[in-house]
Amino acid sequence: MPVNLSAPEPASLLPVAGVRLGIASAGIKKPGRRDLTLIELAAGSRVAGVFTQNRFCAAPVTVCKQHLAAAPIRALVINTGNANAGTGEEGLARARRTCEAVAELMGCTTEGVLPFSTGVILEPLPVDRILPALPAARADLAPDHWSEAAQAIMTTDIVAKGASRRLTIGGRPVTVTGIAKGSGMIHPNMATMLGFVATDAAIAPALMQQLVKDVADVSFNCVTVDGDTSTNDSFILIATGQAGNAAITDTAGADYAALKAALCEVAIELAQAMARDGEGATKFMTIAVEGGRDRAECKQVAYAIARSPLVKTAFFASDPNLGRILAAIGYAGVSDLDVNALKVYLGDVLVAENGGRAASYTEAQGAAVMQEAEITVRVVLARGSASATVWTCDFSYDYVKINAEYRT
Amino acid sequence: MPVNLSAPEPASLLPVAGVRLGIASAGIKKPGRRDLTLIELAAGSRVAGVFTQNRFCAAPVTVCKQHLAAAPIRALVINTGNANAGTGEEGLARARRTCEAVAELMGCTTEGVLPFSTGVILEPLPVDRILPALPAARADLAPDHWSEAAQAIMTTDIVAKGASRRLTIGGRPVTVTGIAKGSGMIHPNMATMLGFVATDAAIAPALMQQLVKDVADVSFNCVTVDGDTSTNDSFILIATGQAGNAAITDTAGADYAALKAALCEVAIELAQAMARDGEGATKFMTIAVEGGRDRAECKQVAYAIARSPLVKTAFFASDPNLGRILAAIGYAGVSDLDVNALKVYLGDVLVAENGGRAASYTEAQGAAVMQEAEITVRVVLARGSASATVWTCDFSYDYVKINAEYRT
Repeated sequence: MPVNLSAPEPASLLPVAGVRLGIASAGIKKPGRRDLTLIELAAGSRVAGVFTQNRFCAAPVTVCKQHLAAAPIRALVINTGNANAGTGEEGLARARRTCEAVAELMGCTTEGVLPFSTGVILEPLPVDRILPALPAARADLAPDHWSEAAQAIMTTDIVAKGASRRLTIGGRPVTVTGIAKGSGMIHPNMATMLGFVATDAAIAPALMQQLVKDVADVSFNCVTVDGDTSTNDSFILIATGQAGNAAITDTAGADYAALKAALCEVAIELAQAMARDGEGATKFMTIAVEGGRDRAECKQVAYAIARSPLVKTAFFASDPNLGRILAAIGYAGVSDLDVNALKVYLGDVLVAENGGRAASYTEAQGAAVMQEAEITVRVVLARGSASATVWTCDFSYDYVKINAEYRT
Repeated sequence: MPVNLSAPEPASLLPVAGVRLGIASAGIKKPGRRDLTLIELAAGSRVAGVFTQNRFCAAPVTVCKQHLAAAPIRALVINTGNANAGTGEEGLARARRTCEAVAELMGCTTEGVLPFSTGVILEPLPVDRILPALPAARADLAPDHWSEAAQAIMTTDIVAKGASRRLTIGGRPVTVTGIAKGSGMIHPNMATMLGFVATDAAIAPALMQQLVKDVADVSFNCVTVDGDTSTNDSFILIATGQAGNAAITDTAGADYAALKAALCEVAIELAQAMARDGEGATKFMTIAVEGGRDRAECKQVAYAIARSPLVKTAFFASDPNLGRILAAIGYAGVSDLDVNALKVYLGDVLVAENGGRAASYTEAQGAAVMQEAEITVRVVLARGSASATVWTCDFSYDYVKINAEYRT
């Protein structure tokens, strides 16, 4: 059961000038399932992406990187039901074949198409089913199909994920809309399992790569469900430039800051949605680590807690077995950490200080916080001024069930 | 259900000259449970240990390190039901109080006593229950109480763990006997949750520390259940010197090699028993990585597979969803790994090569291996001659159940 998460109202996902989306059923895994999404971008759109660091990266990830370097992007094609990962040379050929077919249909170059796949690893991409379904996806293209696209890219997700923001840049209204999917194999290392955020803002191409990285680092790169980094993680930022604002060319200016803030808001909402909809989730957990020497060590400690099966099963049980949090902090790999100086809070309750349980702490206090559906663990390292926040969910019977039965 | 593991017959655990063991009930967590173990060592015994790298290391671990550096060790005292971890200064004081009481009873110095605790973290050690039970443990001391001790140090373990070997050194019969406990919070980083191996061989004190480290590195440091490194991991090697062999002084000689081999056999059997008896285990998995540049990168890849909740739930389901193994190899952190060069085998079946599924592989082959209770995953990295093996178990509903209900 997703934690405090419902699918966005279709009308709440605002169209972005220059972006049209179309959906179709290719019957990749199950007949009738809407599993194919085509996104058309207007001429002049700027596109940048960040991708998984997994060495076994999927064929479409490799092709995306090549195409982003080669040409202006005019279309994205996304299939679920098959990840086209662990598929070798033949996988690359099939990803390219899909791009060729889309290019022909859309009247752009093959390099102008970005392919994305998500689903089972190690099985050949069924291009014989995808190619015949492309015309239907093209015929479905519309500016207001964000909600349908959010649905069509889901795999084990229970709830479709999307968010929009409106802002003004240089007196012009600007829109930011994003969709994402992801529920399991979530521990992004660079980006996450398919996130797409588009804006109609105009922005200099030279700023796009840093912007997508900065947004990913505070959103998709701060979430984990099971600690497994996917082979297909891709986060794509699109700027169509159709809002009519004078193109943003300066990262120090207010316009850049405003756009980045809106993009981060959308991306963080999508990333949190992944943890809220994490496989088998019954609780949404925020792990906030502060007072570190740098952000990296804060993140290291936060991820150690967020990944620990022992911590996650205790939260599932609503059991304030908080020694497990201390153990995770201790093995996080911060080798000179002074455990006597740090403090641990569960919600607002001080749990641990001076290397042990706080004198003021009572089991009843911990048990009360544990009953909540959304819980913050706060760790104060007391050795610097850096901080980092990671979002995750608990570990339930249903996580095991979902992943034991994934292919059945 | 432990995988192909039963408790050792009491008679199969051979007495080690110079070692006596006594058990008592202190009622630490549950009344009547035999939860206190005393081990007496003859004068002249050599003792060395390796301990957890967890920064939140337990009070007894800190005290053990101090006492090992200070004095010849004459006694060990072990309690279950409480880890005395995350207990700050008061925890250290209580561990020392326990050592003082044992020292008084046994007629040795306080520094001659090593304390060990295992159980719940973040709760004060109930010395008021432990101290009154010590005389009963002392009265119970006997050379043939290894089996009872193996029972008494268990926590969530279902099966008691112990092993013995006999060998000859310099014409004298030598015995090696070890016991261990561990079932959850198992991902030792240096040693594991309470392992004790004793021999009556005579060996120069200068060789002990390297020997205990070498033995731990191929046994307890090669097992994981849930990826959580405990606060209390301790592996202790005892050499009483009572076998009458000329003391081993040379690590290059045949005697050292023979003793080390016997110690490794016992330690590996105990380490494997932890994975076989891993919380909720239904399958015992061996992850063997070979062809690496060095042992460290082989271990990194093996642990990435062994820790992955997605891999472990697939094994629980007997589902050859082997793309998850590729994904884990890919995110293991070997940044220049050539995924097209490596091979993956499930049992004897070639699963993946050339970056994808092997042409010869069939789902039926994979499904057949997955039915077995003991499964080897072999990864050939094809970039060097180093190798490493890690043992683990699958991830089942019962893991969640055991850890959700741990304190109830």
